[in-house]
Amino acid sequence: MASTIFTQMPFQSNSLNKSSNTHFVPSLRLPVSLSFKPRTALPNRFRIRAGLIEPDGGKLVDLHVAEPERELKKREAASLPRVKLTKIDVQWVHVLSEGWASPLTGFMREHEFLQTLHFNSLRLADGSLVNMSVPIVLAIDDSQKARIGESNSVALVDSADKLIAILTDIEIYKHPKEERIARTWGTIAPGLPYVEETITNAGNWLIGGDLKVIEPIKYNDGLDRFRLSPVELRREFERRNADAVFAFQLRNPVHNGHALLMTDTRRRLLEMGYENPILLLHPLGGYTKADDVPLDWRMKQHKKVLEDGVLDPETTVVSIFPSPMHYAGPTEVQWHAKARINAGANFYIVGRDPAGMGHPVEKRDLYDADHGKKVLSMAPGLERLNILPFRVAAYDKTQGKMAFFDPSRAQDFLFISGTKMRTLAKNKENPPAGFMCPGGWQVLVEYYDSLTPSDSGRIPEPVPA
Amino acid sequence: MASTIFTQMPFQSNSLNKSSNTHFVPSLRLPVSLSFKPRTALPNRFRIRAGLIEPDGGKLVDLHVAEPERELKKREAASLPRVKLTKIDVQWVHVLSEGWASPLTGFMREHEFLQTLHFNSLRLADGSLVNMSVPIVLAIDDSQKARIGESNSVALVDSADKLIAILTDIEIYKHPKEERIARTWGTIAPGLPYVEETITNAGNWLIGGDLKVIEPIKYNDGLDRFRLSPVELRREFERRNADAVFAFQLRNPVHNGHALLMTDTRRRLLEMGYENPILLLHPLGGYTKADDVPLDWRMKQHKKVLEDGVLDPETTVVSIFPSPMHYAGPTEVQWHAKARINAGANFYIVGRDPAGMGHPVEKRDLYDADHGKKVLSMAPGLERLNILPFRVAAYDKTQGKMAFFDPSRAQDFLFISGTKMRTLAKNKENPPAGFMCPGGWQVLVEYYDSLTPSDSGRIPEPVPA
Repeated sequence: MASTIFTQMPFQSNSLNKSSNTHFVPSLRLPVSLSFKPRTALPNRFRIRAGLIEPDGGKLVDLHVAEPERELKKREAASLPRVKLTKIDVQWVHVLSEGWASPLTGFMREHEFLQTLHFNSLRLADGSLVNMSVPIVLAIDDSQKARIGESNSVALVDSADKLIAILTDIEIYKHPKEERIARTWGTIAPGLPYVEETITNAGNWLIGGDLKVIEPIKYNDGLDRFRLSPVELRREFERRNADAVFAFQLRNPVHNGHALLMTDTRRRLLEMGYENPILLLHPLGGYTKADDVPLDWRMKQHKKVLEDGVLDPETTVVSIFPSPMHYAGPTEVQWHAKARINAGANFYIVGRDPAGMGHPVEKRDLYDADHGKKVLSMAPGLERLNILPFRVAAYDKTQGKMAFFDPSRAQDFLFISGTKMRTLAKNKENPPAGFMCPGGWQVLVEYYDSLTPSDSGRIPEPVPA
Repeated sequence: MASTIFTQMPFQSNSLNKSSNTHFVPSLRLPVSLSFKPRTALPNRFRIRAGLIEPDGGKLVDLHVAEPERELKKREAASLPRVKLTKIDVQWVHVLSEGWASPLTGFMREHEFLQTLHFNSLRLADGSLVNMSVPIVLAIDDSQKARIGESNSVALVDSADKLIAILTDIEIYKHPKEERIARTWGTIAPGLPYVEETITNAGNWLIGGDLKVIEPIKYNDGLDRFRLSPVELRREFERRNADAVFAFQLRNPVHNGHALLMTDTRRRLLEMGYENPILLLHPLGGYTKADDVPLDWRMKQHKKVLEDGVLDPETTVVSIFPSPMHYAGPTEVQWHAKARINAGANFYIVGRDPAGMGHPVEKRDLYDADHGKKVLSMAPGLERLNILPFRVAAYDKTQGKMAFFDPSRAQDFLFISGTKMRTLAKNKENPPAGFMCPGGWQVLVEYYDSLTPSDSGRIPEPVPA
């Protein structure tokens, strides 16, 4: 499965400021010598160092228990105090286990939590900084804390009491909910989806420690084969002899404007001298808010768009990013970028209002549409990543297709927002021809049809991915 | 005027974590060769490099217009759009003008504001980071913005329309008030003193640029002689042949527990091998909240305490720090520390809940009492500063004096909080003998007496310093 797709709505976007432009320089190109690299398995460390960008901290974290030790660990866990994980907690275990958050080795202890809240970065033993902008923490309540007592480790189980992991060398510390929310989202207004889902009713304590994950996390939803780990993605990029990897984060259906942007980005990379830039088309697969299109429908939509053949399967890898979504704008976009470094991407495409949403109470966007790319371009620990500013595409009525917006003939262009797109699909209306391939559009119509046959105006319930 | 004094109430404090302990190592000692340094005037750059810690960015910023150019600048200003400054804005001009916020050269532009909000630090041209945790910004409203139009500079005037400074190469950008408050204070609860005083009713725009300050800021309150600039403080430390400077931030009256802590800190520095550690006793002189003791009364109280002769005038410099107070806990303590680096301090004493206060709405402290020193010890840009954890002093009933708290005989100790102290003074009651020298206590009693002769329970109105 392969293609080239972009999401993010094609709004107008100011040009990037100086500091972010400096990220887009050919001198940052990494030394690459892939042409004579054998395709047989080599130790990961060697293969990573051969061509792709180094993971944060120099080494991809892998928190899985080796197969021969699993039974031993399960017996160990049987005598430990238990902490029950929510679905979203399990998604974070997944994220941590595969090294997306390298060099984190488990749920954050307090010194990591505080650095994330205040500095969006973690200091390593050698004094260098890696980016880490969203707290990856596990909350427990007073009674769980009492049950843990003086134990040094706890067993983490899912809602069906299945053992997921052991957390060792634990540290329990206060969960300053209001402060966590304020510093992560820049507001404490009621109605932030991730906050209501995971923080408001969570316990007053956080428990950090080192994770030993019993076996790889699977969801058995027919989509596990698309959930490539950072190690697997790096192998795939090397198999394809990538000399540049450009990542695109998405959580929305894909239209032809996105395809145009992708094609153009590849063209720019080729102009810079890269010979084989590969796109990582990377839909987010964890928790999303109620009115987002659920992952399974998005994957169906992506598949139809790929079948349309607009994009080159040879230069695209489609995979699912297992992280839950915070909708924390400039804070979260750093996490989205940092995780892709760990997966081997050295270019990151950022557009208008990344990871943003409407203010939950006031009639305005929660974040300034340009803050995301500005903050990303200045973020500590992301200096190695090349930030690719978005070019604005819109529907060109004179050509009958998506094209780059030309301000000198603004009246020729139509901006179709996500809300507009969803409203059209809900009402089984068609967008202008050339906006999205008919097969992809049909998936969206079917999705909305499946939700509320009698009341198409209602917002669907959340569907965890 | 000289002595050794500490404020901060003597609450219990946990021992520091590892990362902050690493700040307290003899290897961080700076090379010092003051003994043969001439006492005649030398260029500042040379004198600074000779012994004291370097200012942030390598050079102390001085934003004053040179005397010969003043008349020219005044004529220039006459034709510029005007922005009226509040008293607190003028305090920030003062702070910026003398280089306390080096390397900032004026009110923040957006790229500095965003880095402060998200990372508490600024990246310099060479890629290094300096700490900068509180936004130093100037708000304007829609009509002011309209009046400024396309002008590249504005004249800043005080409430009496006196020209204070010119702001050049201006940048006007949105003032995201809610986000600024949330990310700086970790809450947006109503009742934060600095927020209500300066942000809630401020304009929707911020104006950044380079400051040219017409002449040094004076308050004509009889205390200007105590307002030494970073340059003047550095000269004083060199005149005294300091080989270590330890700073203490305070905004409260001083009692004997503080004196004990100061004496002990000096003892520790001597043990580390320093020969002449000098204390910078540095009461904050800018805006403070309504129920704090105003600066003029605090200075009277400090004077009485100094006359008491408990501390050594030879090893103490008392000066006023011109910054306004945010009460932003772990975020603000970084600013308090960073500004003292610029004044030449290479050791900073931090205690329980620095720059903290009660939550304005909930019945609890706004910040965890230990977060301030933890965050300070991990803050980017403060690596060069040695963090000195507070030892806990309390009133030892068996000795009848302030002493280091001994948990093995906890029942012998009395913790006298700031609230308790103020209540005693308001009611003209005496604290236990040995808590504070009688002359100092009398000043507090007189202060409260002066406020509300008919209604001693009322909170006094704010008295800007």
